[in-house]
Amino acid sequence: MISIGIIGARGFAGGELLRICLGHPEFRVAYVTSESQAGQPVADAFPTLAGRTELRFDSFDPAHAAAAADAFFLSLPDGEAMQLAPGLLETGKRIVDVSGDYRVRDRQRYEAWYKIEHTSPELLARAVYGLPELHPEVREARLVANPGCYPTAALLALAPLYGFVRIDPHSVVIDAKSGVSGAGGRSALREEFSFTAVNQNLRAYSAVGHRHTAEIEQELEALAGAAAAPPQVTFTPHLLPITRGIYTTCYLRALDAVDLDALIERYRTFYRDAPFVQITGMTPPEIRHVVGANDCRIGLAADRRSGRVIVMAVIDNLLKGAAGQAVQNMNLMLGLTETAGLSSPALYL
Amino acid sequence: MISIGIIGARGFAGGELLRICLGHPEFRVAYVTSESQAGQPVADAFPTLAGRTELRFDSFDPAHAAAAADAFFLSLPDGEAMQLAPGLLETGKRIVDVSGDYRVRDRQRYEAWYKIEHTSPELLARAVYGLPELHPEVREARLVANPGCYPTAALLALAPLYGFVRIDPHSVVIDAKSGVSGAGGRSALREEFSFTAVNQNLRAYSAVGHRHTAEIEQELEALAGAAAAPPQVTFTPHLLPITRGIYTTCYLRALDAVDLDALIERYRTFYRDAPFVQITGMTPPEIRHVVGANDCRIGLAADRRSGRVIVMAVIDNLLKGAAGQAVQNMNLMLGLTETAGLSSPALYL
Amino acid sequence: MISIGIIGARGFAGGELLRICLGHPEFRVAYVTSESQAGQPVADAFPTLAGRTELRFDSFDPAHAAAAADAFFLSLPDGEAMQLAPGLLETGKRIVDVSGDYRVRDRQRYEAWYKIEHTSPELLARAVYGLPELHPEVREARLVANPGCYPTAALLALAPLYGFVRIDPHSVVIDAKSGVSGAGGRSALREEFSFTAVNQNLRAYSAVGHRHTAEIEQELEALAGAAAAPPQVTFTPHLLPITRGIYTTCYLRALDAVDLDALIERYRTFYRDAPFVQITGMTPPEIRHVVGANDCRIGLAADRRSGRVIVMAVIDNLLKGAAGQAVQNMNLMLGLTETAGLSSPALYL
Amino acid sequence: MISIGIIGARGFAGGELLRICLGHPEFRVAYVTSESQAGQPVADAFPTLAGRTELRFDSFDPAHAAAAADAFFLSLPDGEAMQLAPGLLETGKRIVDVSGDYRVRDRQRYEAWYKIEHTSPELLARAVYGLPELHPEVREARLVANPGCYPTAALLALAPLYGFVRIDPHSVVIDAKSGVSGAGGRSALREEFSFTAVNQNLRAYSAVGHRHTAEIEQELEALAGAAAAPPQVTFTPHLLPITRGIYTTCYLRALDAVDLDALIERYRTFYRDAPFVQITGMTPPEIRHVVGANDCRIGLAADRRSGRVIVMAVIDNLLKGAAGQAVQNMNLMLGLTETAGLSSPALYL
Repeated sequence: MISIGIIGARGFAGGELLRICLGHPEFRVAYVTSESQAGQPVADAFPTLAGRTELRFDSFDPAHAAAAADAFFLSLPDGEAMQLAPGLLETGKRIVDVSGDYRVRDRQRYEAWYKIEHTSPELLARAVYGLPELHPEVREARLVANPGCYPTAALLALAPLYGFVRIDPHSVVIDAKSGVSGAGGRSALREEFSFTAVNQNLRAYSAVGHRHTAEIEQELEALAGAAAAPPQVTFTPHLLPITRGIYTTCYLRALDAVDLDALIERYRTFYRDAPFVQITGMTPPEIRHVVGANDCRIGLAADRRSGRVIVMAVIDNLLKGAAGQAVQNMNLMLGLTETAGLSSPALYL
Repeated sequence: MISIGIIGARGFAGGELLRICLGHPEFRVAYVTSESQAGQPVADAFPTLAGRTELRFDSFDPAHAAAAADAFFLSLPDGEAMQLAPGLLETGKRIVDVSGDYRVRDRQRYEAWYKIEHTSPELLARAVYGLPELHPEVREARLVANPGCYPTAALLALAPLYGFVRIDPHSVVIDAKSGVSGAGGRSALREEFSFTAVNQNLRAYSAVGHRHTAEIEQELEALAGAAAAPPQVTFTPHLLPITRGIYTTCYLRALDAVDLDALIERYRTFYRDAPFVQITGMTPPEIRHVVGANDCRIGLAADRRSGRVIVMAVIDNLLKGAAGQAVQNMNLMLGLTETAGLSSPALYL
Repeated sequence: MISIGIIGARGFAGGELLRICLGHPEFRVAYVTSESQAGQPVADAFPTLAGRTELRFDSFDPAHAAAAADAFFLSLPDGEAMQLAPGLLETGKRIVDVSGDYRVRDRQRYEAWYKIEHTSPELLARAVYGLPELHPEVREARLVANPGCYPTAALLALAPLYGFVRIDPHSVVIDAKSGVSGAGGRSALREEFSFTAVNQNLRAYSAVGHRHTAEIEQELEALAGAAAAPPQVTFTPHLLPITRGIYTTCYLRALDAVDLDALIERYRTFYRDAPFVQITGMTPPEIRHVVGANDCRIGLAADRRSGRVIVMAVIDNLLKGAAGQAVQNMNLMLGLTETAGLSSPALYL
Repeated sequence: MISIGIIGARGFAGGELLRICLGHPEFRVAYVTSESQAGQPVADAFPTLAGRTELRFDSFDPAHAAAAADAFFLSLPDGEAMQLAPGLLETGKRIVDVSGDYRVRDRQRYEAWYKIEHTSPELLARAVYGLPELHPEVREARLVANPGCYPTAALLALAPLYGFVRIDPHSVVIDAKSGVSGAGGRSALREEFSFTAVNQNLRAYSAVGHRHTAEIEQELEALAGAAAAPPQVTFTPHLLPITRGIYTTCYLRALDAVDLDALIERYRTFYRDAPFVQITGMTPPEIRHVVGANDCRIGLAADRRSGRVIVMAVIDNLLKGAAGQAVQNMNLMLGLTETAGLSSPALYL
């Protein structure tokens, strides 16, 4: 059993990390922190864990943390993980950071999109971008930057196209729709996330300029290769009246003729060994089929008239989009089975 | 008072036509048909109208119809309105057809998208496309083809761009999200529209090839002008877990630099005299702000990096997207105030 | 046209009062206050009213109020209306108070349930309880205490039983389910009213001791008559994952045998002249059939085995449960048609 | 590993049985039937199981069944399980029947409530009512009648009261609210279960006379004891606009004074050894805290004025209300750990 620390465990992602790690066959949750809940039983903040854990929240303390656990999930707001990660790494711990702090490898790009000064830029090069389907090197990483929820869906949707068809680099549009647990923090009491403001509603937000654009473009550049023009994406998220789930519809123009059957076959081959990715072919995927699972389901369409390819991907934003993928990364870093603790199928049949 | 006939009044759009016409200051609902409900009280099919009307459904009869009413709404499935419209027009009646039968002026284009042989093609040239904000000639029409719900939102969103900036004709992507009342007919008992299949879910459908593409392209061609390359749009609808409302996010590339403030001003000017269109500027519109109203609300964003313009429009698919716009058209055809019977603001504040 | 003042117009009920009064054929909204929004356009707080009013919120000022309007709706938190009502009454204004301040005629009972000291107890006897179906004397009132949302549904459900069968006074159970707009104020940012805390959920609250119990028992006592044992009700509200609507299921034991057909007939007769009450007979009513309407729909069942009668009533908590009933009362106080401004049927067919 | 057969696996409960059994550490799913899907892959009917099973549906065949599996779940409509159970029992198999066929021990009572002639009445006495918290004898059973969803919640809510206070046998009211997966079968395409008929709605159904009343009264009689008057309950279910979950609010009058603290203590003691029951004390339970879990959460209130006790219980109707409890029963019948395969906490934190 590996001793696990979860730093910042009061929010949605933290709660999901707790839920998964408590049921993980190889993990023992040893250290859980929340500054606002320090001293309180974890089960007070998460009634569904009552009877399943006697843990209490600690206030974070570096020495205590180092003594208590071997591997850490950092589930903190952007800008805070970078305060803790260097110290934990020095003591030899493995880290999966669920925040955005180490996702963008280029310091200038990070600071331009995040408007936060990076205080441990020397780690940016060491961190591995934790989308295991594209970055098998997470197996050797000590610090993994867990991708954002939107980039996870968008990149899994787009990656197989690169190397298969040439893409107009200016044509990529990513229209994303997310449940509320991905947008509003659990304790962020804003009128816009109240029930009456969300129910029976939909609205776009951050129509231009969402932070996640940075990591999407970074990864697409790597996929396109240095020889190609860097892809510029338009990424617009929308808020859905549901609790969990992301639907991402990606539009782009192929510069070569696309045969849809061959394209679907390409996707199946590309993800042959990926236990959490399913290709639904010409049937559009549905959010309900991933809620509660660490799965990503991808469907495809092609518009012969316009040469446009449409790729649709769904994930549970709290699982494959956050806590589930974090555990998947940790499994790989620790040499465990990739699916350990993550085999539940979706809840809605 | 004008005597009104509603042909095919059992569905969602028919019910809304009934609701609006019964409260309309200048209308008297004189004739209401439903083949499946013939002889039954209207209030049995629409319990909310109990105490508000004593009408019964008739089976459609041309002579009876002609004697009973002066103006008709046809709320029938695609392919059925064209059976009735010629006869009613011959007796001098005014018609607003809510189906798709007369929306596409070119017979070949109609038959290619609808896979239905057109039986009264001679009327295609006489029918006016009933988007009054773009087609003031509805005032003189005898036969108005009421636009589809998706085209209404998309065209109101895109029209002001034409004549203001040059648009890459291959760049137009329309990502639409609709409530269930717009997708599934009221009596269409399909598992995909059951509560458990829609709730907490989202899915794309008809990712390529939706019939509404035909009228969107037809109207954009007219806006672009004969000199321009014909716009080819990619239009992908999604099913939202709500009852009413459409959110349309349009993406396109401008070939000129776009100043967002000037663009917003363009929209305000363009719709200055349109009583049902509101420009929300840089604030994305929200579906809840139009549910129950005949309004269309439009917001704008511009991505300087990519030269992409994003236009977001919301409507209530049953009102501005169907029955409300039909009454707006009829008001104009009859020389009444455009807003008569349609002044209710949205229900969700 | 009558000049109307709405005091405290920023919340849900205030917004509905605005919406109704702006469309009312005999009202001119002349004065609208909100302390937190003073000076701001009303349409900023209620985007759906943009283009429909140029009004701005005022800060309340007695002299200004008296000069501006002839009749007032007070839409303030419990304990605040009693600060303003005496002054407005002295200047001869008519008042409908939407708060709980004047609903409970007995000062001791008021203070016991509300834990608020009453500062104008002399008005308690003058105020009329504004459930017009039971209190036609609202026509002569200067001060009407608009009932709570839960009591409106419960009392309309129970009233016809009195005088028709003898009721075990200890047997009355009222299980109520309400949408969120009835429970959480619009600006009350509490985690329990966030989308993620309400969606796909149900929970009871105030299982015992809800303030509305006081007015329910007061009115049932009057219906039962002085000779009868005072009814003691158990009233338990639940929070539904919907925005608008109340479902009230009332259970009681009849001491006489009950014939369901006769009982239904009793209800139809009792409400023969009530334009907003519909009896659905043995078909249980549905919330969707009243959302957006000032209606109350009532259904009935009888359990022969146990002698229990079940009465189910639905209302829109913001209309018949608040703003709609307030306008209904004002119409009657002013000698207008009872249904003026209130004739919209429900939005969901 | 025990070989498991699931007979009638196409519906909601069948799908949940599949999901649980596929993840169960001691079960191997060996035989799965559906008459309508015979020959089709299970993953076609349940896309979320794609990649998790290669099973195909069989048509039920007694010999094949007997050879394939050692223990069976019958997930069939009322009246069909009784056709199969006798034969399977004769071959020595263990059975958990999820239908209502063996829940009511008295044949007359069964036939009066179900209007179905019982074809294997000799088994009624051998079947054990599978509410393990009240019936530990399921451990020795060969045929367990899995309780209905409503009775599970109601009986767990009420049982600890018996033997603790005297209850007015005529006072018991059970107001239940259920998500749609409990009411409408998965393939039952009825307009009343379409999205537009359920969304933003609530309605009672079977206000009197629901079949589940029979087993509730049967079990309460046993709890009350032969000396007491048989309890007569009024049980009224309502349809909630959610997919999963039941909220049951029970009202009754105690004939002795009740101390709420002592009552809560009684509940905690009563369920001390029940791994799936949690007492929330004076905090009302919430549906979201059990969705996805086999848990039952119970909260309590007492109205001193009226002597009424209010007990609120929540379950996931498909888990503790159906498939989860069925597996719990099977675990006990087979001598396995009671919680095997059932330890997931709820999905909504």
